[in-house]
Amino acid sequence: MASFLSRRQFTIEWGHCDPAGIVFNSRFFEFFDWGTWTLFETALGVRPPDFAAAFGIMGIPLVDASARFIAPARFGDVVNLTSQVTEFRRSSFDVEHQLFVRGTLAVEGRETRVWAGRDAADPSAIRSQPIPPEVTARFQRP
Amino acid sequence: MASFLSRRQFTIEWGHCDPAGIVFNSRFFEFFDWGTWTLFETALGVRPPDFAAAFGIMGIPLVDASARFIAPARFGDVVNLTSQVTEFRRSSFDVEHQLFVRGTLAVEGRETRVWAGRDAADPSAIRSQPIPPEVTARFQRP
Amino acid sequence: MASFLSRRQFTIEWGHCDPAGIVFNSRFFEFFDWGTWTLFETALGVRPPDFAAAFGIMGIPLVDASARFIAPARFGDVVNLTSQVTEFRRSSFDVEHQLFVRGTLAVEGRETRVWAGRDAADPSAIRSQPIPPEVTARFQRP
Amino acid sequence: MASFLSRRQFTIEWGHCDPAGIVFNSRFFEFFDWGTWTLFETALGVRPPDFAAAFGIMGIPLVDASARFIAPARFGDVVNLTSQVTEFRRSSFDVEHQLFVRGTLAVEGRETRVWAGRDAADPSAIRSQPIPPEVTARFQRP
Repeated sequence: MASFLSRRQFTIEWGHCDPAGIVFNSRFFEFFDWGTWTLFETALGVRPPDFAAAFGIMGIPLVDASARFIAPARFGDVVNLTSQVTEFRRSSFDVEHQLFVRGTLAVEGRETRVWAGRDAADPSAIRSQPIPPEVTARFQRP
Repeated sequence: MASFLSRRQFTIEWGHCDPAGIVFNSRFFEFFDWGTWTLFETALGVRPPDFAAAFGIMGIPLVDASARFIAPARFGDVVNLTSQVTEFRRSSFDVEHQLFVRGTLAVEGRETRVWAGRDAADPSAIRSQPIPPEVTARFQRP
Repeated sequence: MASFLSRRQFTIEWGHCDPAGIVFNSRFFEFFDWGTWTLFETALGVRPPDFAAAFGIMGIPLVDASARFIAPARFGDVVNLTSQVTEFRRSSFDVEHQLFVRGTLAVEGRETRVWAGRDAADPSAIRSQPIPPEVTARFQRP
Repeated sequence: MASFLSRRQFTIEWGHCDPAGIVFNSRFFEFFDWGTWTLFETALGVRPPDFAAAFGIMGIPLVDASARFIAPARFGDVVNLTSQVTEFRRSSFDVEHQLFVRGTLAVEGRETRVWAGRDAADPSAIRSQPIPPEVTARFQRP
């Protein structure tokens, strides 16, 4: 079974770029965050700001993030970002992002996130929770 | 009576700068935010994260911000930022920021902020509150 | 004669928001920058990265920016940004931005920018240049 | 032989944090960039903006970046960042970053960067170059 994949297109802005004229590395991790929310909104049919309430969680914080920078992206480039969950585990999951510039893979990203609630005993602490099966089911495509 | 003035020194980073090699304008508004919190911490002797709890407020959100860009700041520049409340009103106040590069005034900023709590009837709404006199008193210098 | 107006729609992202759950102020100045480039691209028919080459300039740096924050914008809000030049002078111009959330004006911005080239004698210095009449003409609508 | 290690201390700002009240993930990659420049400045005795000129390169762009988020960092937290080259290869190198909050390792980062110049035939292209032995020598401690 293939996994659900979301697509998003946007333009590289002046303020995304550094003195070398290319997108500053941290911006790609912002883009990946955009991609993950778009993916979850598309797969689950729940708007991102309603997500915490709908599933009784605090959020989906990162425990791991990485990127491989293959080709630079520049001011004015129209980029296509695809995002896909590659694995669901009990209470965490991996998202893979691919960012294309003019049809060429420019950046590849990977995030590991947890399905997280507030700890009952200590609300300031974040505690992972089992991902409901009805959530994971929505990411599968026949 | 002169008003309390706080100082802060930091270095312009690569990621603060745009393809023209100068600090991207929105970054200065981040710097002003740094300046305002430093000013309040110094004047009130309360750490910024404890500020809301200490004064029963939600925060000090902006209603107005402006900057005048006189000279560019570049990667590696050591800058000095001074911040000062220029006026306290019933529930709002003005902060003036001056950012110096190599002894020259490079950017001048101004923020108007409100002393704000959550609305009792609607906690999602933000409501201005009177600034306690013990707060304004701490900003005055003989 | 009315002035050319550009429109842009986008969504507030998680990373745009601060611990109060509202867009952090500096982000609006990024959004205004997006708006100005969109406005110039639409009016002039030149892609932003080709802009400097097309007009023999270095860029359109800011000398002044301001914002009035009327209502907060939150994660997931779909916002509409309109941008318009309100005045062209010899070598500088004003851009006015209006950002709407759910049909309500949430933030108003104003930028003053210069039409700027590199100084012939000192290429590290930025020098204002007269704005070509063919540029200003493209912003007028009958 | 141990490798040179640089240290940097700074405070988590309001604008670094997201609606969950913790540092937004992309900010850590900005912090790692700060760390790498601090490390090179300290080891080589060359100011970051003079770095390209001193070594005849365009910069030290990233080809790979990753982070492991172990514990959250919050507004007002004083953090200590240590940065260290863990391996020099012919024209690329790895930097390891460790970010401590209250003495506890909160985030671990890793960057792979290239020693890069402009391509002689095509100045818009970036080309890796051999790292001079006098550079790598400065990172070694007896």
